[in-house]
Amino acid sequence: MNEQILLTPGPTPIPPESLAEEAKPIIHHRTKEFGDIFQEAQVNLQYIFQTQEKVFTLTSSGTGGMECAVVNLISPGMKVIVASIGAFGERWIKILSAFGANVVPVRAEWGYAVKPAELSEALAKNPDAKIIFSTLTDTSTAVACDIKAYGEITAKSNVILVVDAISGLGGQEVHMDDWGVDALVSASQKGLMAAPGLGFISFSKKAWPFVLEAKAPRFYWDIRTIEKAFHNSETPFTPAISLLRATNASMRIIKKMTMPAVWKQARDLAKYTRDYGKSLDLELFPKDPCDVLTSFNVPQGVDGKKIVQDILDKYNISIAGGQEKLAGKVVRIAHMGFIQRNEIEKGMKALGEFLKAQKVVAAAS
Amino acid sequence: MNEQILLTPGPTPIPPESLAEEAKPIIHHRTKEFGDIFQEAQVNLQYIFQTQEKVFTLTSSGTGGMECAVVNLISPGMKVIVASIGAFGERWIKILSAFGANVVPVRAEWGYAVKPAELSEALAKNPDAKIIFSTLTDTSTAVACDIKAYGEITAKSNVILVVDAISGLGGQEVHMDDWGVDALVSASQKGLMAAPGLGFISFSKKAWPFVLEAKAPRFYWDIRTIEKAFHNSETPFTPAISLLRATNASMRIIKKMTMPAVWKQARDLAKYTRDYGKSLDLELFPKDPCDVLTSFNVPQGVDGKKIVQDILDKYNISIAGGQEKLAGKVVRIAHMGFIQRNEIEKGMKALGEFLKAQKVVAAAS
Repeated sequence: MNEQILLTPGPTPIPPESLAEEAKPIIHHRTKEFGDIFQEAQVNLQYIFQTQEKVFTLTSSGTGGMECAVVNLISPGMKVIVASIGAFGERWIKILSAFGANVVPVRAEWGYAVKPAELSEALAKNPDAKIIFSTLTDTSTAVACDIKAYGEITAKSNVILVVDAISGLGGQEVHMDDWGVDALVSASQKGLMAAPGLGFISFSKKAWPFVLEAKAPRFYWDIRTIEKAFHNSETPFTPAISLLRATNASMRIIKKMTMPAVWKQARDLAKYTRDYGKSLDLELFPKDPCDVLTSFNVPQGVDGKKIVQDILDKYNISIAGGQEKLAGKVVRIAHMGFIQRNEIEKGMKALGEFLKAQKVVAAAS
Repeated sequence: MNEQILLTPGPTPIPPESLAEEAKPIIHHRTKEFGDIFQEAQVNLQYIFQTQEKVFTLTSSGTGGMECAVVNLISPGMKVIVASIGAFGERWIKILSAFGANVVPVRAEWGYAVKPAELSEALAKNPDAKIIFSTLTDTSTAVACDIKAYGEITAKSNVILVVDAISGLGGQEVHMDDWGVDALVSASQKGLMAAPGLGFISFSKKAWPFVLEAKAPRFYWDIRTIEKAFHNSETPFTPAISLLRATNASMRIIKKMTMPAVWKQARDLAKYTRDYGKSLDLELFPKDPCDVLTSFNVPQGVDGKKIVQDILDKYNISIAGGQEKLAGKVVRIAHMGFIQRNEIEKGMKALGEFLKAQKVVAAAS
């Protein structure tokens, strides 16, 4: 069988240069050699985040980065607003609730973005809210939010804007500084085209007083400690050295390509995927679709829960099904990071053949 | 220059089989293929932990595993005892304090273990203490504690015993079940001979009610969620897939070797290193030395802060200096995991040459 084609919205395929870095002998992390890796990562991450601020590396899944944002910004009882567009907006709510925040959810119907006007309204109704938590792209619904417009709203107030860009960064356009994002969270295994295991987070100058005043208990995620070590090009705890080295190799490709080209590629592949879907009579699930993955409704009469495993077994192509309330109802094809157009073509072709076969079976029974 | 020799107490050298696994194309983590990796890891980890309990994999540094133990066991205000033998005992105290525990520290002078009798005494004085936090081997002091004796003390009471075995596991003898350890924490990059980025933790049946009743806020580390996903051979958040696959390759070597042989090898290499040190007139720092690394006092008149960088620059051998209050006062040579006797020999030879050169300089000046 051919090598597996990975079209899931993270982990995404890893370029050979990055895989090769993972296989290099390990080095110690309190050395000049590691300091060089650390500093290169910093330059690369600042470019991809589009920020002048420090970008901190965490040894964690992306969700660890979200928890890091929460415990470094909130105090128990603090009122915050969450703009939720899917499973990952709900994750903000769960983490914030676990740490005692007073959460005001602004939920969009799944498939839609939270409109900037809805956020303004929530802020007007809750003048004591201190922070807005949001999602750049939610892979559960394949929806993107208008973060630029959110930033224009918070820029006029003392409220800070936190963005989960775990699945969006390196695909969906975002400018941390220019758009007024006060905390941006991401991870290694999506648009950054590296293996999972690293989280990344950056705070604006407006967010920093929150970091200093937050009363949520924190140790592993404590940005005050992490920032101190940062000055020595170190992390306070043993970092995932091989993953950071590998992420640098992937980020070099992104830098060489330039961010505008990365964003355009995602937009182009999104259009390609949707046009292909249209030719298969597939209906798009999201009404406010993002650029990094596409979600199609599973046609009536088709067993949506079988699609993913069947296509993996028959074609060795890994696509994603629906999560939580969309389980069995949608199929998702990612077009982020190192995913190539010809791989998407193969995935869509396989999906078309699978659906055709199902229809024949359905018609015969 | 030859390939670097790594004699630091974590990260430690990685076997080629394990490095090769890191470089394999990434796969998705909600698949049967990942389930197989997960299940193999479980069998391997149970053997190395010497436990019948589930061993949970965390995407984190070892310190993340320590925080995981704390937030899943304590409630704010709970009285706990920490047996501290160095920097990592102090880390228990810092994490516990951050999450609001009422910490009773039992500190040994650096270089000594906390005696079981001291723990019994602390328990007698603090009958309301619920948990003892301890360290199997503390790399800052190169000391080991008598965990078996600690377990005999807690077995007679309702108190549970938590052990940080991050640097000890896969070198220093420990039997989670037979010794009555109620929570054992470890990580991938020391005795387990894999790249850093994974934490491991297991809880005894006696510890489980603590997990269910703990009131410390938790989300990323929440073992209740992690345990639920475990039943599907999954983790709740994207795991560090390539690192777990690689850790399996390293653990296969350990299993083939058998744990008694692993423990004996560490003891033998410890003796070899100490005998070599004696031949260089080096004085051992710890009075209760562990098997996984050796710490020597820096001789008078030698600039201890220069040793590490000088030996790295001249010989391409990476050894460790002292941490915190031992900075500049000790040098540390690890003999855990995949470190070979001939590598230790080269490291000790380099150390001897360095010290000799320093003495000549000192005598001439």
